[in-house]
Amino acid sequence: MTPSQYTPEEPISSIATALAPAALGIVRTSGKDCIELVSKVFSRPKALLEAGGNTLVYGWIVDKADSNDDGHKIDEVMLAVYKGPKSFTGEDMVEIFCHGGPAVVTAIQNLMLKIGFRQANRGEYTFRAYINGKTDLTRAEAVKEIIDSHTDASRSHAAGRLSGSLFAEIDSIKKLIIDTLASIEVEIEYPEDEETIADTFDRKDIELAISRLQSLVDSWKGEKLYQDGARVVLAGRTNAGKSSLFNAILKEERAIVSDIEGTTRDWLESWASINGIPVRLFDTAGLRETEDVVEAQGVQISRNLAQDADVVLYLVDGREGLNEEDREFIEKCTEPLIVVYTKADLASGKTFPSVTISSKTGSGMAELYEKIIAVITAGVSTERQQAGLGSARQKEAVAEALECVKHALVSADDNYTLDAVVQDLEDAIDFLGEVTGDVTPDDVLGSIFANFCVGK
Amino acid sequence: MTPSQYTPEEPISSIATALAPAALGIVRTSGKDCIELVSKVFSRPKALLEAGGNTLVYGWIVDKADSNDDGHKIDEVMLAVYKGPKSFTGEDMVEIFCHGGPAVVTAIQNLMLKIGFRQANRGEYTFRAYINGKTDLTRAEAVKEIIDSHTDASRSHAAGRLSGSLFAEIDSIKKLIIDTLASIEVEIEYPEDEETIADTFDRKDIELAISRLQSLVDSWKGEKLYQDGARVVLAGRTNAGKSSLFNAILKEERAIVSDIEGTTRDWLESWASINGIPVRLFDTAGLRETEDVVEAQGVQISRNLAQDADVVLYLVDGREGLNEEDREFIEKCTEPLIVVYTKADLASGKTFPSVTISSKTGSGMAELYEKIIAVITAGVSTERQQAGLGSARQKEAVAEALECVKHALVSADDNYTLDAVVQDLEDAIDFLGEVTGDVTPDDVLGSIFANFCVGK
Repeated sequence: MTPSQYTPEEPISSIATALAPAALGIVRTSGKDCIELVSKVFSRPKALLEAGGNTLVYGWIVDKADSNDDGHKIDEVMLAVYKGPKSFTGEDMVEIFCHGGPAVVTAIQNLMLKIGFRQANRGEYTFRAYINGKTDLTRAEAVKEIIDSHTDASRSHAAGRLSGSLFAEIDSIKKLIIDTLASIEVEIEYPEDEETIADTFDRKDIELAISRLQSLVDSWKGEKLYQDGARVVLAGRTNAGKSSLFNAILKEERAIVSDIEGTTRDWLESWASINGIPVRLFDTAGLRETEDVVEAQGVQISRNLAQDADVVLYLVDGREGLNEEDREFIEKCTEPLIVVYTKADLASGKTFPSVTISSKTGSGMAELYEKIIAVITAGVSTERQQAGLGSARQKEAVAEALECVKHALVSADDNYTLDAVVQDLEDAIDFLGEVTGDVTPDDVLGSIFANFCVGK
Repeated sequence: MTPSQYTPEEPISSIATALAPAALGIVRTSGKDCIELVSKVFSRPKALLEAGGNTLVYGWIVDKADSNDDGHKIDEVMLAVYKGPKSFTGEDMVEIFCHGGPAVVTAIQNLMLKIGFRQANRGEYTFRAYINGKTDLTRAEAVKEIIDSHTDASRSHAAGRLSGSLFAEIDSIKKLIIDTLASIEVEIEYPEDEETIADTFDRKDIELAISRLQSLVDSWKGEKLYQDGARVVLAGRTNAGKSSLFNAILKEERAIVSDIEGTTRDWLESWASINGIPVRLFDTAGLRETEDVVEAQGVQISRNLAQDADVVLYLVDGREGLNEEDREFIEKCTEPLIVVYTKADLASGKTFPSVTISSKTGSGMAELYEKIIAVITAGVSTERQQAGLGSARQKEAVAEALECVKHALVSADDNYTLDAVVQDLEDAIDFLGEVTGDVTPDDVLGSIFANFCVGK
């Protein structure tokens, strides 16, 4: 799905809400003739065909090909009608707001496919918005990001990009470079005297561009943390209190807790939010603890999970303290590890050289969260940036642009030809154009939108 | 939440779509001042306040109380504006169509609560529609039903009721009874001669009312099957082929397959559709088969699951045939049971006295489905009714009405006083009024809407 291969305006349709029982659901359509197509299965075709843009039309979706008297009524709906170019995609659109039962939403989508719509590809609506000039790539990527965000802080970062903060920053850096290019080109046309190259343009502009590009590049590590979250693994012997801590963290800090796909796992996973940072929490508590087999298995699974962890919380029953097995695990663990003494409520009077908590009373939890945050944000700027980068793709392109501008400055200082400096700066502009989508190769576009969810 | 305790018009708000990542999500609001309230956190308040009914307004949801320059933008949205009484609830409504990330939808709903909306109770929108005369109870209950429907056939039954088919049938039966009452009352006012009571009204009308009420009552068993589905349990020894059959049924017949809540179960459950009838399929395949412990556990769990089954499929490896353990299970099982010989592809040449399948090749599956359907629909009318009942509550009220009308006919035949007959018929009308909500007691209303999902 790239601009050069793409058939625009072909009518497309897809389910745009999650397929689980809920009050409302949405089937989204876009493309040429999409209003006429939907009118063929609508109880009030005239009202729909005559509706203006940005209006809502009440009626029933009916399968008119189905002769069964009762069976042809699918659902009572509201249709949102948009007339291109005043729509999300820039084309005519109809959004069908129906009841949110999976069977209803599916029946309506199947009817759409029957009457001539094609199932929309992932991200195809946003892709159309992009090729129709309704959005740039930084905003398009922010759409995916805002949907996938796991905490309010993540959502807020994405909303900034969606509103154009990153686009504005890139655009403003581009202007600095373009201004510099312009003054160099004046110099090439009308060479005045034998000054050094560096005198032909305002060095401060380029230095500012470098510092702003650098700060964008630096923002990525933190932005990535807000997008992907950190892997936090609970480990420790049976009865060290892993389940209790798992539940305590979810209960206190849950933003959106949902079990991750797959039900037959040897461990539990859940999203939680620790001080606003999304965390993917892993626990072996799901392990069926039947007699002999599991103790050993549990340790092995903890070890495997720990291998990719951003931080391992190694739990030790505060009443018992470390034993040989614990020391061996801690020694062998190559990931950042925090020893957590549990059941503080039962082990009164004892003090330990690390954080001590009680999942039951909540004592020590705030301290534990601070320690976790300190580990997972080590070397990461979590300061709110005016504009931060939203994807690895953007980071690569901005880093390339940064290199080009740095190289231009070195070339100028070393008195290379003006042409060499111009080339560097033009390359930088191309890389920045890739970020916003001015000059993005087809294959890059294809891979950007392939990661979207269907219906967006 | 009953009409007499209820504060109408209080602004309410809730998330109306499933809380899982998706392209779009909806936050729904209704009540007095709801348009003004939303305008306080909308980027284009004037456009919203001036918008007509049934229109869409583009803009951003912004938390204006949040002074953080970047943080105040929540999401880019479309607002659907409805002006009462032309809305679902009959009140002013704003539906916020936002991006479908759980963090986004939650942030918007939290903002609504902050600016003065109250979290809507389950079914409160539909309840308001009912008290504002926008819907009757049969249609209101069909809303819940259509959302919960598990197969296309279930959805279609509910859509009939939502479109008013049940309401029309009840109304028409009520007319028959009211006509009869009218002619009896003429007789009471102007008694002409000494005819029997039965001569004072058209007996055929009452007989027709009885037969139509009876057919409504009879419809419930079938409608209930389409709503609740049947419990089908796979049992059998380890390696009898339970997992393979479970997967084969899901693959071939899945309508909406979703694992039922809870991940740490000793069995697997999933919804499937067998010839249009929703089926809740149970299997012990999820059981971790670690050496010694599980074999015995598996049999015990199968036995427990089987106890509430509408049909037990007892699987026997076709290459081995029945052994003593199988015979014991089959003998002790008190629920309907079908013996299924599996692995027909490997056990070629053998024939068995029951259905023989291969989950691998699909042979025998159609026959198995027919047998399952025959068992679970035994004594149930699955014929499409013009109008069927949609809830146990409706069934009880209609059954009471039926008894009253039958009693009226007996009273007339036995020449009781006209007053007694009138009383019976008036009682019948009251019971039918309960079905549609003309005369429904508060506590009944409360329990109807308490079963709804939030946002509807």
